[in-house]
Amino acid sequence: MESFMQYNPTKLWFGEGQIKQLQQEVDTHGKRVLLVYGGGSIKQNGVYDAVMKQLRECEATVIEMPGVEPNPRLTTVKKGIALCREMSIDLILAVGGGSVIDCAKAISVGVFYDGDVWDIITRKATPERALPLGTVLTLAATGSEMNNISVITNWEKNEKRGWSSPFAYPAFSILDPAYTVSVPRDQTVYGIVDMMSHVLEQYFHRTEHAPMMDRFMESVLLTVMEAGVKLVDDLQNIKHRATIMYAGTTAFNGMLSCGTDGGDWASHQIEHGLSAVYDIPHGGGLAIVFPNWMAHCAEEDPSRMKKLAMTVFGIEERGRSDYEIAMEGIQALRQFWDSLGAPNRLGYYGIDDQRIEELVHKSFMKPSIGQYKVMTRDSVRDILIRSLA
Amino acid sequence: MESFMQYNPTKLWFGEGQIKQLQQEVDTHGKRVLLVYGGGSIKQNGVYDAVMKQLRECEATVIEMPGVEPNPRLTTVKKGIALCREMSIDLILAVGGGSVIDCAKAISVGVFYDGDVWDIITRKATPERALPLGTVLTLAATGSEMNNISVITNWEKNEKRGWSSPFAYPAFSILDPAYTVSVPRDQTVYGIVDMMSHVLEQYFHRTEHAPMMDRFMESVLLTVMEAGVKLVDDLQNIKHRATIMYAGTTAFNGMLSCGTDGGDWASHQIEHGLSAVYDIPHGGGLAIVFPNWMAHCAEEDPSRMKKLAMTVFGIEERGRSDYEIAMEGIQALRQFWDSLGAPNRLGYYGIDDQRIEELVHKSFMKPSIGQYKVMTRDSVRDILIRSLA
Repeated sequence: MESFMQYNPTKLWFGEGQIKQLQQEVDTHGKRVLLVYGGGSIKQNGVYDAVMKQLRECEATVIEMPGVEPNPRLTTVKKGIALCREMSIDLILAVGGGSVIDCAKAISVGVFYDGDVWDIITRKATPERALPLGTVLTLAATGSEMNNISVITNWEKNEKRGWSSPFAYPAFSILDPAYTVSVPRDQTVYGIVDMMSHVLEQYFHRTEHAPMMDRFMESVLLTVMEAGVKLVDDLQNIKHRATIMYAGTTAFNGMLSCGTDGGDWASHQIEHGLSAVYDIPHGGGLAIVFPNWMAHCAEEDPSRMKKLAMTVFGIEERGRSDYEIAMEGIQALRQFWDSLGAPNRLGYYGIDDQRIEELVHKSFMKPSIGQYKVMTRDSVRDILIRSLA
Repeated sequence: MESFMQYNPTKLWFGEGQIKQLQQEVDTHGKRVLLVYGGGSIKQNGVYDAVMKQLRECEATVIEMPGVEPNPRLTTVKKGIALCREMSIDLILAVGGGSVIDCAKAISVGVFYDGDVWDIITRKATPERALPLGTVLTLAATGSEMNNISVITNWEKNEKRGWSSPFAYPAFSILDPAYTVSVPRDQTVYGIVDMMSHVLEQYFHRTEHAPMMDRFMESVLLTVMEAGVKLVDDLQNIKHRATIMYAGTTAFNGMLSCGTDGGDWASHQIEHGLSAVYDIPHGGGLAIVFPNWMAHCAEEDPSRMKKLAMTVFGIEERGRSDYEIAMEGIQALRQFWDSLGAPNRLGYYGIDDQRIEELVHKSFMKPSIGQYKVMTRDSVRDILIRSLA
């Protein structure tokens, strides 16, 4: 085990009907609320009405900011910052999935920063405070509801950047699995791929001895697979929605990396490059890239892929080499994602090798990516080429 | 899954050398420090010196309160409250195991309460604030370093009572596994039994569908057993000390009960009765009582005992009844604790059936105990009689 600091101050309200907790949270954090949401699905599925009912009952003043896009944009963040300042907002309430929450996080720290908020997102500036942020989650996927991480896209520069800050934890998050039953099958699958990727990325650590964390990560993967395969054929099933929703939060709230080196996030970086250039769904991109990242890395060191194959996919040794077992595990992961209907090649999105050098370039938004295997431009190119067809 | 609120604001600093973080914590919380500790073992193993060095370097004013006893006493809590008031303490720093931390928690909430702090411990009064509390853990066992629970004994009344409050979370806890290498074998074993009991008590829930939590709990048990059996023959091994230390924290920081009914804590209540009357080590009492509680309950409903037998002890069905499988699992747990050298009968502490009615009475410090099986006085008597020899 390695040294670590564990700290997560987000208060999670989980379960059907927990929206009623919103009133005491508004009482605590302030009555002037910026309501941030996306394309309007919350108006169709009743979540908007449920939130507004609570806000009315506690006599909050609500300023609405709809229209946050998937892969949320810097321009939208700036619009939110201006609104907060102009309207003297006390509390930002993000109602939606990871994109809406990530956008709201950037707004919450940007309000108190004098310069361009892109400085914070590119880690040139460090936030020192933030407006309180609450979330009402409507999509199980990113884990943003209980972590301090956010990803923002700058379309002027075709750059998609992840950033974090101790001030970016939501003060509270309300997770009602009933709010996710109207999520369509493809989005549900992307969410499952995203949360599994978060666990897998943490699983590919190089810490010698982290037995409890390894078991926890295997537990999340087994649970997501078991519930996920049932859920995609039974989208209204509240029991499976609940399991998947809480698994998504647990997958990426910091707990699974306590005592490890944090794992390897190169495949996320490569996917960020992809969706910065092509604006494809993050979960779709991951389903394509991740197994190819694994296969690329297994050629050099298949040890963790082998462990995954045996513990999660039940593959037996039967006298074969570590590499053979690893590859069988990767194949099992591909088959599982295929069985849900996730895409497995870039061609699915009409992406060919035309802009491959640009994709390689966009993957290196940090000076170094990869830890299980440090990526060169050649490695990223190899992974992208494996991903084409 | 059931509805829940997940919230744990304790900041954990884990790893060798993390004592250096104490200075910034004192800077944050205040320089007038009440240093609470136990019988003085921290002066022999160097922990006292390491703590004092940090406190000197950040120019803290230190008021010492040594002498907190195992099964910490109400009289000691009251002494601490008086000291805090008299010396205008900013921060209570508990250096020790669960007893020292539990005592410090009661002091921290008692300082701001006008009446007798026993009112808080018996849940007749509700704390509304607390002095900040930090801990430096020297014994892996109770999990008190990252939860809001405390157990205090009132010797005038022979009552041992657990209580909790949202204000009783430590603000920070420093966990250096090197600080536990001098813990002798018997105390190490008691700690292992205590943390396993915490997990088992949460495991015996009646929530129909909590697959991730079940796997997490099985993960903690498997990890503790794997590391524990090695550690007791290699007490200086820092790797196993680290695994056990963090497992003890995880076992009881609230995470394992998210979405379940919380499990069944009757065996803890019965043990509290035992150690209130006989002042035996908590972990020793649990090792004796717990398997007998399981055997008693399995007669009525062996379902969870069977699941435990199969997932944690690797016992196979082979066409046997649920009860037979459950009993084989209970036997495997007994054998594991026996193999560590834990006591397995009350006779080990010279306890016979003389005061058994008093023990039954002392187990019912709450109106109702038990949830997997609600205990009657007859059930508790049966469990105690099974525990005698």
